[in-house]
Amino acid sequence: MRILAIREKTVALGSASRNSSIGFGGMTASALAIHTDAVRDGRPVVGLAFDSIGRYGHGGLLRERFIPRLAEASSESYSDGSGGIDPHKAWALVMADEKPGGHGERCGAVGLIDAALWDLKAKLAGVPLWKLLAEVSGQAADGHVPVYASGGHYRDVDDIKLLCADISRAVDEGHRRFKIKIGGVALAEDVARVAAIHALLGPGMSLAVDGNGTFDREKTLRYVEALAPFALAWIEEPVHPLDYDLHREIAAASPLPLATGENLFSRDDARNLLRHGGLRPERDMLQFDISLSYGLVEYLRILDDLETHRWSRQRCAPHAGHLFAAHGVGGLGLGLAEVAMDQASLFGSLTAHLVVRDGKAVLPDRPGVGLETCPPFQMIFENLLQ
Amino acid sequence: MRILAIREKTVALGSASRNSSIGFGGMTASALAIHTDAVRDGRPVVGLAFDSIGRYGHGGLLRERFIPRLAEASSESYSDGSGGIDPHKAWALVMADEKPGGHGERCGAVGLIDAALWDLKAKLAGVPLWKLLAEVSGQAADGHVPVYASGGHYRDVDDIKLLCADISRAVDEGHRRFKIKIGGVALAEDVARVAAIHALLGPGMSLAVDGNGTFDREKTLRYVEALAPFALAWIEEPVHPLDYDLHREIAAASPLPLATGENLFSRDDARNLLRHGGLRPERDMLQFDISLSYGLVEYLRILDDLETHRWSRQRCAPHAGHLFAAHGVGGLGLGLAEVAMDQASLFGSLTAHLVVRDGKAVLPDRPGVGLETCPPFQMIFENLLQ
Repeated sequence: MRILAIREKTVALGSASRNSSIGFGGMTASALAIHTDAVRDGRPVVGLAFDSIGRYGHGGLLRERFIPRLAEASSESYSDGSGGIDPHKAWALVMADEKPGGHGERCGAVGLIDAALWDLKAKLAGVPLWKLLAEVSGQAADGHVPVYASGGHYRDVDDIKLLCADISRAVDEGHRRFKIKIGGVALAEDVARVAAIHALLGPGMSLAVDGNGTFDREKTLRYVEALAPFALAWIEEPVHPLDYDLHREIAAASPLPLATGENLFSRDDARNLLRHGGLRPERDMLQFDISLSYGLVEYLRILDDLETHRWSRQRCAPHAGHLFAAHGVGGLGLGLAEVAMDQASLFGSLTAHLVVRDGKAVLPDRPGVGLETCPPFQMIFENLLQ
Repeated sequence: MRILAIREKTVALGSASRNSSIGFGGMTASALAIHTDAVRDGRPVVGLAFDSIGRYGHGGLLRERFIPRLAEASSESYSDGSGGIDPHKAWALVMADEKPGGHGERCGAVGLIDAALWDLKAKLAGVPLWKLLAEVSGQAADGHVPVYASGGHYRDVDDIKLLCADISRAVDEGHRRFKIKIGGVALAEDVARVAAIHALLGPGMSLAVDGNGTFDREKTLRYVEALAPFALAWIEEPVHPLDYDLHREIAAASPLPLATGENLFSRDDARNLLRHGGLRPERDMLQFDISLSYGLVEYLRILDDLETHRWSRQRCAPHAGHLFAAHGVGGLGLGLAEVAMDQASLFGSLTAHLVVRDGKAVLPDRPGVGLETCPPFQMIFENLLQ
């Protein structure tokens, strides 16, 4: 099988939202399509990928380095020996002449190519990606994944009222787990938001909160103390993602579970978190973003390291409400997938069509990831598919 | 003062060399020029920067995110209050809406803009950058910096003979400290190369070796043992730059000084090395690359952290034989600057014109960094200066 062309384009995500770290008004993402000479049902097979959120599109890097390396490689160099493409071999080609360390930006560009190759591989096998991954990794999978509904950004007017309406709607849609932002307002106001949602939650439901890496030690401990009565599922990224010592201090002092990892983008960095961060394998959550961390090829290495450090895959809840990540959760035996409460946003539309029952989403059953099934993405991929 | 335009272009470095980690055949670098409405001697003042080596050019990221943020900012937002541009304010503008962590690629793009702003600032002040930095940081400086001559890549034919000729030439040029590659051949051959150079060195001269982050624990310890008789200045990056635990093990076992840091690109990562790497402040060397690590604004923060961790600035030898880094060494009171032995390469030409006497280079005395004085760079910057 031969790669004929790799096309990409940059899409404005155009969200006016803001977390306690950055604004998303100028946020972009890349869409990518890998065209091959393989044909199924009379049509050429194309692998598709769409960026995760929060780190901008990767168009420049894709065009400068990563697409040319794969597009110019011989088909033998990436062959899986049975007519397909081996994502691991392709990964090594794409990472040729890249120095060790410095895991930012390029990991997202490589992750996009990786995602498109896995989409392609699943399409060629005629199975959804979650099923392919379950075979590859020897995990049981039935196409149902535990999910949590993520949102709770701040509004200027009627903030708590609208927040409660969001949560009630998500409950009606079948959700049982929720996550909202903290740190964008004063502690008392954040506590009021949490208390308002807490009053809405029925048995078996839970709430997590997300600080987006902006708190210091004292602020984190004040929040932990103030939020303790609500028995939250976790407090996410209270402190800077690379301050392992501070994670260790917080973990030692917090009865509340911690969640972190979405801003570490490699096996090297993930391992340092496990070694130095003092996190608790029976309680804390790891949120490495599959697509932003060099893709599934690297994520499988991270899972190997988890085993070495005696962490269960069940503690993994990959960042970003992406359909691709949901396949990863479903196929690799991970703990929890994220979906956006805001289904009207472009990014939210990636998972808006998933049916959720009693806190579990039903993954698509068509071959590949199924990006083509999300209406706005049909338009986004249209000219990449030519 | 107002920024009128920021221009950049990508330059092929076109070197056929190879270290034990990557080939440099496709290596690129960015050149950048910041045009302003300030005028000196009847001519507009332009700030210039050129990339460090090893991480490719940053054109895509510069165009997608970092140049527009500064070019579109109001002149008040970056004003230093006395008619110039404050690099710290400009840095904050350029890093707006960037999430924490993920320090790769973008740190080089931001570092380029930072370098051009410091060049501009020094030109406006009418002093060379090293003198400006000495004032800013309260360090003594006389325009002379201790340097080492770096090279020793492998050749297919007459390797040791040509290597010794390189070293002899560098000795004649005034050099007293040298660094060569290791790990590209078998240990015995590397020892033969070191022994051949060792025989050439006079009193007060020293040799360091560079493994480019590719060795494992056992290979490193074998090298340390085999090279111990030669009293080397240091062994550089024997192991993976992000494996802090392994650094700690090697440091505990090696009488030889270690040098590392060129593949850590931020204050966050530098601090983790200091905290977790077990390096020895009285012996080991820190080689963070100023330009690839978000520039001087961030490097000043790294120097603050060094103080907190009781490391002397004298232990710093910034990566890459760049004229910009040599100014940093001279102005910030750092230990050692690197210059390339291969003066014929484009990158080597950045420092080829520096006069070296008894192991010290004389920094330029004209305002700014002086990139314009390096002949190939006159051509490179020509159309960026229009």
